[in-house]
Amino acid sequence: MGEFGLIKHLTQDIELKNESSKYGIGDDCAVMQYPSEKQILMTTDLLMEGVHFDLTYCPLKHLGYKSAMVNLSDIYAMNGMPKQMVVSIALSKRFCIEDMEQFYAGLRLACEEHGVDIVGGDTTSSLTGLAISITVIGEADKDKVVYRNGAKETDLICVSGDLGAAYMGLQLLEREKAIFNAQMAESKNPEIPMEQAQPDFSGKEYLLERQLKPEARRDIILKLAEKNIIPTSMMDISDGLSSELLHICSQSQKGCRVYEERIPIDYQTAVTAEEFNMNLTTCALNGGEDYELLFTVPIADHDKVQEIEGVKVIGYVTQKELGCALISRDGNEFELKAQGWNPLKD
Amino acid sequence: MGEFGLIKHLTQDIELKNESSKYGIGDDCAVMQYPSEKQILMTTDLLMEGVHFDLTYCPLKHLGYKSAMVNLSDIYAMNGMPKQMVVSIALSKRFCIEDMEQFYAGLRLACEEHGVDIVGGDTTSSLTGLAISITVIGEADKDKVVYRNGAKETDLICVSGDLGAAYMGLQLLEREKAIFNAQMAESKNPEIPMEQAQPDFSGKEYLLERQLKPEARRDIILKLAEKNIIPTSMMDISDGLSSELLHICSQSQKGCRVYEERIPIDYQTAVTAEEFNMNLTTCALNGGEDYELLFTVPIADHDKVQEIEGVKVIGYVTQKELGCALISRDGNEFELKAQGWNPLKD
Repeated sequence: MGEFGLIKHLTQDIELKNESSKYGIGDDCAVMQYPSEKQILMTTDLLMEGVHFDLTYCPLKHLGYKSAMVNLSDIYAMNGMPKQMVVSIALSKRFCIEDMEQFYAGLRLACEEHGVDIVGGDTTSSLTGLAISITVIGEADKDKVVYRNGAKETDLICVSGDLGAAYMGLQLLEREKAIFNAQMAESKNPEIPMEQAQPDFSGKEYLLERQLKPEARRDIILKLAEKNIIPTSMMDISDGLSSELLHICSQSQKGCRVYEERIPIDYQTAVTAEEFNMNLTTCALNGGEDYELLFTVPIADHDKVQEIEGVKVIGYVTQKELGCALISRDGNEFELKAQGWNPLKD
Repeated sequence: MGEFGLIKHLTQDIELKNESSKYGIGDDCAVMQYPSEKQILMTTDLLMEGVHFDLTYCPLKHLGYKSAMVNLSDIYAMNGMPKQMVVSIALSKRFCIEDMEQFYAGLRLACEEHGVDIVGGDTTSSLTGLAISITVIGEADKDKVVYRNGAKETDLICVSGDLGAAYMGLQLLEREKAIFNAQMAESKNPEIPMEQAQPDFSGKEYLLERQLKPEARRDIILKLAEKNIIPTSMMDISDGLSSELLHICSQSQKGCRVYEERIPIDYQTAVTAEEFNMNLTTCALNGGEDYELLFTVPIADHDKVQEIEGVKVIGYVTQKELGCALISRDGNEFELKAQGWNPLKD
């Protein structure tokens, strides 16, 4: 079909819906136009097979959806609304047109749900695995863009949703993959695809969904706007709460105190962490891929932020000299670290 | 050093110079602001090792420079000026910090020459080769954006620079690589790097430069503006003149006539094509990677466009029904084809 044929096939019925999208796929560039009172946000991500995703258990439709979400999440993390997306894919020969249709179906579903126009697409070849590069453009009112560096002393630290579930979902999938590979090695029949092995994930659906189909928190940004709350700082949780808290504190030149008992964790996450004999708080602090929002608000917004369903106050911002610490259930303080918090080691 | 450390190291002294660049590296998104009379252009490219570049003979500094240029060229092809860039790189373990410093040195040189701010950078790992994804944002006055679809009957077809040289440069490099590999196989000493083989390229410097260090034609866009010429259609020549002419004609619903004798070809290109026993016109029509500009102007602009150094009129636009053809030196017409024009076969 060739590169141009494939792009055309995948994108031919895409319609531009946003006022700011002036010209989409089909020329050297996409063309946009924004009113001058808007600031324009841009984020990009490069996802590599075997590093960021594993096609053994990640269906291509989910991969398309998730690839979009991780970028949309970055736009929301600046208090903006995503508007345009360009997508590049590098494919090796083992992929067929149906695979790419699946990938695009997931991508387009995510874009439709979030009001985003796909304005550019590039498909090229790869000698080895699949590579996906997505850039998203968004907009925000000039005085409402939220950076990581604006946290003030006494601000409340808030998170949306719950944490650690995507990480536990990954553990489940990796365990099943290992079992499957062992069975394959035994039976010496490499022909059975993993989908047909049908591992039993009943009761764990939420964890798998969090791993395979994360949702960028547009709803939280809309609710904050409704209540006239402009966070003093914000970012999305992709590398784990600990790591992101340290970014906000370091860029704001502040410290923080976070209460272990206030970290939102789903019941399935807790049960599964126990099954895996893992420390639950460690999973929630360092798991990553939650794509929830972490933000700080002035203490005066306490009542307003409490009213938002799905947002929890987990601590507060301190002066820099106090450092960044977790207060455990028994009242002890542990220094927050980016890679793996281990209370037993301290 | 870790991902964050590496990005910081490579980008720490980057200063934003454009008025439209509001916030660069260090948050979830880059932030820009443009006046509402400007249209915003966006282009993206994903370059994969072994497909788009060969590190055997492409030094990383040149690769950085070229990776930037191929994107800048797309902005100029819309009659715009590039302003911001985001860069993602996926690296395998065989690359060291010095390699990335070289890559960034080339990238930054290109950006400085073209007035572009690097506003975002992402470095991740790859299981296999190097992957490079670059997105560039540019601006153009609303009424001056030039698309591929605006060519009118009787318009003159123009190209900048000369064609086929980058392709001949590639042939030279590939030939030396083959010789080098054969010598290595014989000597059984895999330790000698190709740079030390020092093949003799004297007299061929221009061809190598066109392949390894292409220049996006900002100068042509500035000269067109100086002379108040707005092309009716334009694109950059990355896949070869034939392919790009067919894009412009198909999107404009027109045909064309191009004169073989008017296609600009450098002397070294001609000599080397003969050495390789290749048809020179085929090389110029289908070589690719020239990164010259192909554009059409109204016939009334004939005298003005003739005055621009480095631009040549090579033919004219016809009605669609006449198709797209090359008129050879002996006056015969050959249909233009995207992949390899072969007069012997017709």
